[in-house]
Amino acid sequence: MTGYSTNMRVKLPVICAILEGITIILFAIFVRYDHETDARDWHHHVKNHSASDIENDFYYRYPSFQDVHTMIFIGFGFLMTFLKRYGFSSVAFNFLLAAFGLQWSTLIQGFFHGFHDGKIHIGVESMINADFCTGSILISFGAVLGKASPVQLLIMTLFEVTLFGINEFVILNVLEAKDAGGSMTIHTFGAYFGLVVSRVLYRPNLDKSRHKEGSVYHSDLFAMIGTIFLWMFWPSFNSAITAHGDDQHRTALNTYYSLAACTIATFSTSALLSGEGKLDMVHIQNAALAGGVAVGTSAEMMLTPFGSMIAGALAGIISTLGFKFLSPILDSKLKIQDTCGVHNLHGMPGVMAALIGALVASLATADIYGAGMSDVFPLIADGSRTAQSQAVYQALSLLVALGFAVFGGILVGFILKMPILGSPPDTQCFEDEIFWEVPEEDGGHGQMAVVNGDDMEKHTMA
Amino acid sequence: MTGYSTNMRVKLPVICAILEGITIILFAIFVRYDHETDARDWHHHVKNHSASDIENDFYYRYPSFQDVHTMIFIGFGFLMTFLKRYGFSSVAFNFLLAAFGLQWSTLIQGFFHGFHDGKIHIGVESMINADFCTGSILISFGAVLGKASPVQLLIMTLFEVTLFGINEFVILNVLEAKDAGGSMTIHTFGAYFGLVVSRVLYRPNLDKSRHKEGSVYHSDLFAMIGTIFLWMFWPSFNSAITAHGDDQHRTALNTYYSLAACTIATFSTSALLSGEGKLDMVHIQNAALAGGVAVGTSAEMMLTPFGSMIAGALAGIISTLGFKFLSPILDSKLKIQDTCGVHNLHGMPGVMAALIGALVASLATADIYGAGMSDVFPLIADGSRTAQSQAVYQALSLLVALGFAVFGGILVGFILKMPILGSPPDTQCFEDEIFWEVPEEDGGHGQMAVVNGDDMEKHTMA
Amino acid sequence: MTGYSTNMRVKLPVICAILEGITIILFAIFVRYDHETDARDWHHHVKNHSASDIENDFYYRYPSFQDVHTMIFIGFGFLMTFLKRYGFSSVAFNFLLAAFGLQWSTLIQGFFHGFHDGKIHIGVESMINADFCTGSILISFGAVLGKASPVQLLIMTLFEVTLFGINEFVILNVLEAKDAGGSMTIHTFGAYFGLVVSRVLYRPNLDKSRHKEGSVYHSDLFAMIGTIFLWMFWPSFNSAITAHGDDQHRTALNTYYSLAACTIATFSTSALLSGEGKLDMVHIQNAALAGGVAVGTSAEMMLTPFGSMIAGALAGIISTLGFKFLSPILDSKLKIQDTCGVHNLHGMPGVMAALIGALVASLATADIYGAGMSDVFPLIADGSRTAQSQAVYQALSLLVALGFAVFGGILVGFILKMPILGSPPDTQCFEDEIFWEVPEEDGGHGQMAVVNGDDMEKHTMA
Repeated sequence: MTGYSTNMRVKLPVICAILEGITIILFAIFVRYDHETDARDWHHHVKNHSASDIENDFYYRYPSFQDVHTMIFIGFGFLMTFLKRYGFSSVAFNFLLAAFGLQWSTLIQGFFHGFHDGKIHIGVESMINADFCTGSILISFGAVLGKASPVQLLIMTLFEVTLFGINEFVILNVLEAKDAGGSMTIHTFGAYFGLVVSRVLYRPNLDKSRHKEGSVYHSDLFAMIGTIFLWMFWPSFNSAITAHGDDQHRTALNTYYSLAACTIATFSTSALLSGEGKLDMVHIQNAALAGGVAVGTSAEMMLTPFGSMIAGALAGIISTLGFKFLSPILDSKLKIQDTCGVHNLHGMPGVMAALIGALVASLATADIYGAGMSDVFPLIADGSRTAQSQAVYQALSLLVALGFAVFGGILVGFILKMPILGSPPDTQCFEDEIFWEVPEEDGGHGQMAVVNGDDMEKHTMA
Repeated sequence: MTGYSTNMRVKLPVICAILEGITIILFAIFVRYDHETDARDWHHHVKNHSASDIENDFYYRYPSFQDVHTMIFIGFGFLMTFLKRYGFSSVAFNFLLAAFGLQWSTLIQGFFHGFHDGKIHIGVESMINADFCTGSILISFGAVLGKASPVQLLIMTLFEVTLFGINEFVILNVLEAKDAGGSMTIHTFGAYFGLVVSRVLYRPNLDKSRHKEGSVYHSDLFAMIGTIFLWMFWPSFNSAITAHGDDQHRTALNTYYSLAACTIATFSTSALLSGEGKLDMVHIQNAALAGGVAVGTSAEMMLTPFGSMIAGALAGIISTLGFKFLSPILDSKLKIQDTCGVHNLHGMPGVMAALIGALVASLATADIYGAGMSDVFPLIADGSRTAQSQAVYQALSLLVALGFAVFGGILVGFILKMPILGSPPDTQCFEDEIFWEVPEEDGGHGQMAVVNGDDMEKHTMA
Repeated sequence: MTGYSTNMRVKLPVICAILEGITIILFAIFVRYDHETDARDWHHHVKNHSASDIENDFYYRYPSFQDVHTMIFIGFGFLMTFLKRYGFSSVAFNFLLAAFGLQWSTLIQGFFHGFHDGKIHIGVESMINADFCTGSILISFGAVLGKASPVQLLIMTLFEVTLFGINEFVILNVLEAKDAGGSMTIHTFGAYFGLVVSRVLYRPNLDKSRHKEGSVYHSDLFAMIGTIFLWMFWPSFNSAITAHGDDQHRTALNTYYSLAACTIATFSTSALLSGEGKLDMVHIQNAALAGGVAVGTSAEMMLTPFGSMIAGALAGIISTLGFKFLSPILDSKLKIQDTCGVHNLHGMPGVMAALIGALVASLATADIYGAGMSDVFPLIADGSRTAQSQAVYQALSLLVALGFAVFGGILVGFILKMPILGSPPDTQCFEDEIFWEVPEEDGGHGQMAVVNGDDMEKHTMA
């Protein structure tokens, strides 16, 4: 059933062994516990500063980390199980890419952010950042879902994580922009990178698999598990690496209200767009999340609760409109086959988030932020930037993210075209059977057999 | 297939736009960050009191908030997916109502509880309280599940949240009763409100849809996701807004043991009630949770672990008996069509919880509580009430909750009867197709098509 | 359809009532709040030590507890729903056994660990330990899944919890070995206990039910919910009861990287072992978790991140090989019918974890651990043991765990053979219908009915 090229027996083990082997060697050379994870260093710190164990960063951030972790592995993983015959690949390739991505990004981000005395020091904050980076990969994965082999996806992860790290370094460390929830570094970058890769990998004959691109009743319910976990834990996502205290608190609160308003806007727009006034599960599963993206840059700032709600409501409307009107155009005119509609959930809302971030930054005053300015805008606090110049750097960062996404996506897209990477044929897209040993079906024979006796069931089993 | 009245194309967007628009305007006028969420205020506090960021209420309560959030959106949402053809509506209307309800209740609860200097101040505690209020709405939703349009449900939410806020104000602030886990304010109120609404909306011809009221094998497994998340996180629910320290700790512990004992009691009662000794999934999905409700008022008190277990075991037995014997009577004699059996899970256990709360309050002594009395029973601690008078106020609060539920339910029930709200016809209850674009089915044709070729599948797709 | 012996109408209520009744009485006599849960004691402590409420152990451990709780009830429960016709039993018997096990283990562990002044004092740490113990039971449950009645399983739980408590006491208190994540006390003990029980209960005619032992498409997706939650929260599992501060932090971090490496190793080994280069869901669902077990003893130690990754990668390979080559041999030659392959996920990785723990302990030096030595290896810190002698005690503990598992398993296996316990017949294994009222099916008739009209559906309903 599967041709030579998609057989994973040699390719996948070889690529995994190489990637994991190199990663472990680099970890052995470069990666060390940070001073809150190391037995000697932390005890030294506690004794010298009369500190309490509760001040260990673990207690500030580990609950947020676990929420982010759940978004990455359950949220993204199950959101993509909406496809009727691609549930195994959706949740399991998501698992594979994220598990590799978080290791690789520990190294890449470590080289750029946490490199001291020739070593990368890691702890709960670097774990969150590593998970964040994989979020970007999984967004790109959504754009090519069903059309790439696991080997292609691992290669994409390898390069995209690396580009992510450089892009993030430019935005956060060179331009010193703020982007707590990563709407520029994660969502905008991940979405446009994936869209460009999808464009480069354009399949003119994808119609041969289109009948498998839809959902079935139960697959939409599995996808809702992903949606709801993403929606619930997005406040943790945006707040996970903000400063301790009011910053984490405020970021979570803003995101909570943005998402709530976004959900109402999504339901109403979805009903409005349908001729029969019926709701569309695709909108609910995706556009209702756009409110989390839309405040990803600004939720840390003094956005105000009603500001969050306006941002969220707009994002829900724009995202739903995108699914209805823009995605078909991207597909037919621009030859961008965006399986999960990441342009609507992550792309446009990410751009919107960057602009809102620039706007809110431009309004920062000492009166509003008080001593908290040093956490949110340290360069404004120390006088080296005005609020307006910070806003300019924020806007500039959006361009950087888009630039890295487009050029990176072109580069990586062409790499992924190498035939040896085992891309599935046009007739076998959105199909688990090409990569998985798939069991018999739920319905039909198997179930009747339970009623009618065992004979038929034995017959239908492999 | 759908008549004019249930078409949501105009109604749903209009009602959503009005509700969200008013909400945002009221937020802009009234809602502000509290002093732990505001950048200036928190930094001011930290500096003046040499405080640590770890003392921000976020770190005391945010993990509990996320557990409560999961119960509201995953727990309630998936618990109701047991219906074979109503999974989309169950999980997604749950999502819609909760997303609106938490915004509206921020305002209503804010006016009654957190109104200072003409502003409502919000933070993680108000977020928990907002989620709590939506729990009450979702309980009522369970009583009318499958028989109301989303517009009806949003109108119900609008009024019920408002009544919830008043009822809660009377119980907690006027009568100064204790109800940490909201067994009176959330469960009793939500259940009887929903039952009365269901009575007012009685459908004599519901038989035309009864064949769709049951579950199928997989829908029962989806429902178990809801059950287990509710069960696991109930200790967080009951403890989420109790006082810091021993109160949160003890409340979580008591709830943990109550639920464990309840589960054993539910399994045994379920087996006992069946002629063939077979277990019933409805009981496991619902009655095993009654232990969380049953200690919702008293878990904060010095209930003792074995006291919790007795309460939980009794609740499991009573709830299972209710499903077996009482629900059919409510339906046939009292004309109360309670789709999810909320009377058994939230109604009776809620009443029981209130009585246990009064009993345990009456036993409070300075010897048992020590200095902790001021957290649990401040009026006993400061001498303005005896334990016995506190118990009387606790019992009185139950009557208040029942009163608000019954009169509020009658009022709102009649409002919901307005034909323009798009109630589904008797033949289309428990049916997603009336409100959703529903994809092809999992089993049958679709699956055989994978085996037999693509022809049939193309045929069966829309 | 079911014979007398498997009818649960009398047996299950009787055994539940006896067990729960005895448990509640013993709780009433022996169990009390500990000093962080008790109102008087905690307030006394806060006042006398000018302590802060944030120092209550609740805030150190409750988020970890909830993650462990999720692993026990969602993780184990859904992991076992892979069987096509045993989903109800998998998730619900898991629920029953864990709910009883955590109560019983509170008593057993309390007698051995927390017994002061004739009372057992409980709080969040004992709750975690109680959940841990149930993990062991659920591992054993996995070995006999589908082949035992709930009454048999409750009897197994009663005895296994008791043996667990004694075994744990010997390992942790007598031998003073370290085993933070319970790889010896939970995984090794639980796995080999279950395997021995399965051997004693060997069914030569299990072929009559083998056709029901497989998965279907959707049941594999339900199982992935279990897998992913176990995988995500394993860092919390291993770190939940380690010392505050760097210990919890480091343990979580080590487990995170071990699991990530394990996942890559599992995918590559799975593809390599298949003739067609296709991945096998059984491997992904199970072997990808072996990395959490493999570092369960050593993750608390200064294992280093790359050490964790090597351990995880090896575990993934060994576990996948076990599923492919060893499980068939256990079944055909050793007459061990291991439904879930617990030998591969918990048995071998548990043994490996013990050996890694001994190795890493032997390498402990004052230079590496500094003042943190007293948390990780108190006997090395106070000079009463060398690192090498600690390693010997670690290795000895593995033998103790294996000894308790084998002899305990034999004893309990023979107890479970009593006919009155209602073991299902060979033709009815892996079948929910024997213990559950099972609704109609998803596919086939029911679904066509929605399309074709109501007549057929009514006909197929009970």
